[in-house]
Amino acid sequence: MYFLKITMAKIKHDLNTLFNSKSIAIIGASSNPKKVGYALLKNLINSKANIFPINPKYDKILNKKCYKNVLSVSENIDTAIIAVPKIIVEKVLKECGEKKVKNVIIISSGYKEVGDIISENKLKSICEKYKMNLIGPNCLGVINTSNKMNASFFNGLPKKGKISFVSQSGALGVGILDYFIKKGFGLSKFISIGNMAGINFCDVIEYLIKDKETSVICLYIESLKEGKRFMKLAKKSDKPIIVLKGGKSSEGSKAVSSHTGSMAGSKEIYEFAFKQAQVISAKTLTELFDKALLIEKQGYNKKGRKTCIITNAGGPGILTTDYCEENKLVLPKLPEKIIRELNNFLPKAWSHHNPIDIVGDALAERYEKCFKTMAKCKLFENYIIILTPQTMTEPFKTAEKIIEFKKNLEKNTRVVACFIGGEKVEKAKEYLINNGIPCFDEPLRCVRSL
Amino acid sequence: MYFLKITMAKIKHDLNTLFNSKSIAIIGASSNPKKVGYALLKNLINSKANIFPINPKYDKILNKKCYKNVLSVSENIDTAIIAVPKIIVEKVLKECGEKKVKNVIIISSGYKEVGDIISENKLKSICEKYKMNLIGPNCLGVINTSNKMNASFFNGLPKKGKISFVSQSGALGVGILDYFIKKGFGLSKFISIGNMAGINFCDVIEYLIKDKETSVICLYIESLKEGKRFMKLAKKSDKPIIVLKGGKSSEGSKAVSSHTGSMAGSKEIYEFAFKQAQVISAKTLTELFDKALLIEKQGYNKKGRKTCIITNAGGPGILTTDYCEENKLVLPKLPEKIIRELNNFLPKAWSHHNPIDIVGDALAERYEKCFKTMAKCKLFENYIIILTPQTMTEPFKTAEKIIEFKKNLEKNTRVVACFIGGEKVEKAKEYLINNGIPCFDEPLRCVRSL
Repeated sequence: MYFLKITMAKIKHDLNTLFNSKSIAIIGASSNPKKVGYALLKNLINSKANIFPINPKYDKILNKKCYKNVLSVSENIDTAIIAVPKIIVEKVLKECGEKKVKNVIIISSGYKEVGDIISENKLKSICEKYKMNLIGPNCLGVINTSNKMNASFFNGLPKKGKISFVSQSGALGVGILDYFIKKGFGLSKFISIGNMAGINFCDVIEYLIKDKETSVICLYIESLKEGKRFMKLAKKSDKPIIVLKGGKSSEGSKAVSSHTGSMAGSKEIYEFAFKQAQVISAKTLTELFDKALLIEKQGYNKKGRKTCIITNAGGPGILTTDYCEENKLVLPKLPEKIIRELNNFLPKAWSHHNPIDIVGDALAERYEKCFKTMAKCKLFENYIIILTPQTMTEPFKTAEKIIEFKKNLEKNTRVVACFIGGEKVEKAKEYLINNGIPCFDEPLRCVRSL
Repeated sequence: MYFLKITMAKIKHDLNTLFNSKSIAIIGASSNPKKVGYALLKNLINSKANIFPINPKYDKILNKKCYKNVLSVSENIDTAIIAVPKIIVEKVLKECGEKKVKNVIIISSGYKEVGDIISENKLKSICEKYKMNLIGPNCLGVINTSNKMNASFFNGLPKKGKISFVSQSGALGVGILDYFIKKGFGLSKFISIGNMAGINFCDVIEYLIKDKETSVICLYIESLKEGKRFMKLAKKSDKPIIVLKGGKSSEGSKAVSSHTGSMAGSKEIYEFAFKQAQVISAKTLTELFDKALLIEKQGYNKKGRKTCIITNAGGPGILTTDYCEENKLVLPKLPEKIIRELNNFLPKAWSHHNPIDIVGDALAERYEKCFKTMAKCKLFENYIIILTPQTMTEPFKTAEKIIEFKKNLEKNTRVVACFIGGEKVEKAKEYLINNGIPCFDEPLRCVRSL
C-alpha cells in the first residue's frame, strides 16, 4: 500500500498537460546562439503553445517579449523548462510553484549524476510541496510531433509517426532523433527523463499505453525504479514495449552510476524481469530501431515464427537460414501443392524447398509469379525477400512487386526485405521503406527485426 | 602422399596467368545487352589485356572482331571465359585445350548444383587432360583492380585497395562488389569460385598469401575441400584471413547442397577448425566488412585487447562498455597520473574512469586536449571515440582531431569511431573513413571490428 501511495503521489497532473502544453515558459532563455536557453526558445517559437521567455537580463529575445520571472507572466503556465545555472535552480523552481506551473523540465545538471543527492532531493521536495510534475534534472527535454512541440534543446523535429521513445541518456536521445530524421522514421513522443528525480519510466509508460498516437514504446534504460510497477504495466500493455538496457556488464554497470547517478542492477535480474514482463529485448540500438520500424509499419505478431525465404541469391539465402535457426524462427517445408505450382514457371535449378532460391537471373516477373503462388499458401507468418543486383536483376520493379505482395497477404503476415548492394539497390530500398516494407542490407537484421 | 599429389596436380599454371592475363577470350560473347556474354565483353573491353570475342554468329561485336572459335585466334590466349549453353560447354572447352589456353572460367551452370555430377566430372577431366586451370563452373568470374581486369559479369569496378575476396556464392559476390563501390572500399582481387570443380579455396588462398597487392583475405565459405591444407595455409599465413561461413545451422546446411552442390559440414567441426587455424570468424557480412576495413586501414593486432573509450555521451559509452566485456576487450583503469592531468581541463562532471565521459557539451577542443593527454599513455592498444551531435558539438572538427590523434599514437594502436546520428554527423563520418578511421553508427560494430 505504501508503495502504491508513493507512486500515485508522484504524478501531480496528467502528463497530457505536459505533452499538450498550452503555454510554456523557458526559464533561462537566451539570445546567445551558443546557449541551451537559445536553442530551447528557437525550437519552441513555432509551436502552437504560448511561449514565454524568462530572463531578467532581456526585454526581448527573438522578437518575443521576455519576462523577469514566471510570476510576472499574467497567463497560466502549463510547463516551465528550466535551463539556468544550478545555483539559481531552486529559486526559479519555487517561483514556478507559486505560479502553479503544472510541469517542470529541469535541463540543468550537477545533481545525483555527480554525487549531489542533497540538492536533487531539494528539487524533489519543492516539486512535492507545490504539486508539480518534475522531469529531470540533467535531461534533454520533451518532444511531441503531433503538435510540433519541441521542448528540448535538440535542433530538429522528426516527422510524425507512431513510435514513442523514452531515453535515460540525453546524448543518446540526440543521436536517435538525428537518426530518425535522416531515415524518415516517424516519431510520436520523445522524453529524455534524465535523473528521474520525479517522473520515471513507469509514469511515462503508463501515459504512453493510453496514448492514441503511440503504437510502439521504445526505452533506453540504465536503471529502473519501481520494478514491480514496471512489470505490471508491461504485462497489461497491449502495445509492444522494446527495451535496450545499458550497463548489463559489470564494467558498464559501474559507468552507469557516474552517468545518471543510478544503480544499474544485475544483468540476470533485468533479463529475468524483462522476460517475465514480456517486453521485447533489443541488444543494440540498430536492433531497437529495426524492431520498432517493423512494428510501426506492419504491427506486432508475438508468436509469428513460421518464416519463408524467397531469394535470387543462394549465399545470402543460406546465411539467412542460419540466422533464422539461431533466432528461433522456423522454416516450415513447402506444401507439395505449392512445389508443383512453382515447378510450372521456375527454372529447373530452383531450390525446391524453403528457402525458395529462384536463381540469380530472376527478373521482377519471376518474383511476382512466386509471390502470387505463395499468397495462396496460408502457412507462413513471415516472409523475407532477398535480392542481390545481378546484371539482369530489376531491383526497383521487384520492390514494387513486394509491396503488392504484402497487400495480398493476411494483415498480420509480415514482410521484410534484404537488398544487398550499393548504388544498384539504393532507390529500391528507399521505395520499400517508404511503402511500409523494412529493407536492410544485412540478413541478420531482417531476422532480428522479426 | 596421394593427397598431396592431387593438390599439386590441380594447379596447372600459376594463378598469376589468370589475374594478370595478357589475352582473354570471351566464348559466348554477345551483342544482346540482356545476355551475360554481352556484360562480360563490355566489362573487359577497356582492360589492358587483348580481348577476343568468340561467337560464330557475329563478325563484330562492340566494334571488335569476333572469332568463330578460339582455334581461329592466331595469338596465344591466357584465359578463356565460357558463357555458352551447357550443351556446348564441353565442345568449346576441348577447343580451349587444343589452343593451350591456361585458365578457363566457366560461368555456365547446371552442374553439381542441380545434381549433375557426371557432366561436372567431364569438365574436370577435360581440363585435367589439357592442363588447364578450371574456375567454376556456376560462377560470376574474376576481378583484379590493379590492372582493371573485370573478367566477371558484374557491372562496375571497385577502387583499387588491399582487400581480396573469395566467394563461393556468385550472387553474394555481386552484392559485395556493389557495396564496395558505394562505400568506397578498396578491393585487390575478387574471385567467385562457384562449384570448385578445379581451383578451390586453398589454391586461391595460397596465391593471395604471396600476392603483394593483398593485405587481408576475406572468404565466404559454404563448404571446404582439402581441410588439412586449408589449416596449414591459414596457420602459416602472415596475412589475416576473415571467414564468413554459410550453412552452419542444420537447415542452412541443407540449403547449401542445392546451391553449389557441396556438403556444408557440421558447425562444430568448422568452428573448431577455424579456431585451430587462427582465422578470424565473422558472424555476418557487416562484421566481415568492418573487420576487413579496419585491418586494411590500420593493420592487424591479434592480441590488442586493452581498450579506452572516449565519449561525449554517457549512454553510448555504457553500451560500448557492455559490448567490450561481452567480446573480451578489456577496459583497464586509467593511471592516476592521467586522471590528474585530465582533471586539469575536463569539467568536474567527467566520469573519472574508463570510459572517459567528457560530458555532452564537449567541443572539438576538449576532445583534442583529452587526445593529447592520452597520447602520452602507452597503456591502450585500441581507442573507441564516441560522439552524439548535441547543439554545441562539432562533429567535423572533432573528426579532424581524431585523425590527428591516430597519427600521434604508436603504429599498431588502433582507433575506431562511433558517431551516432543522421545529417549532423554524416560528413564527419565520411571524412573519418576516407582518412583511415572506420566510423560506425552502432557501438557494437566498433567493438566487433576490433
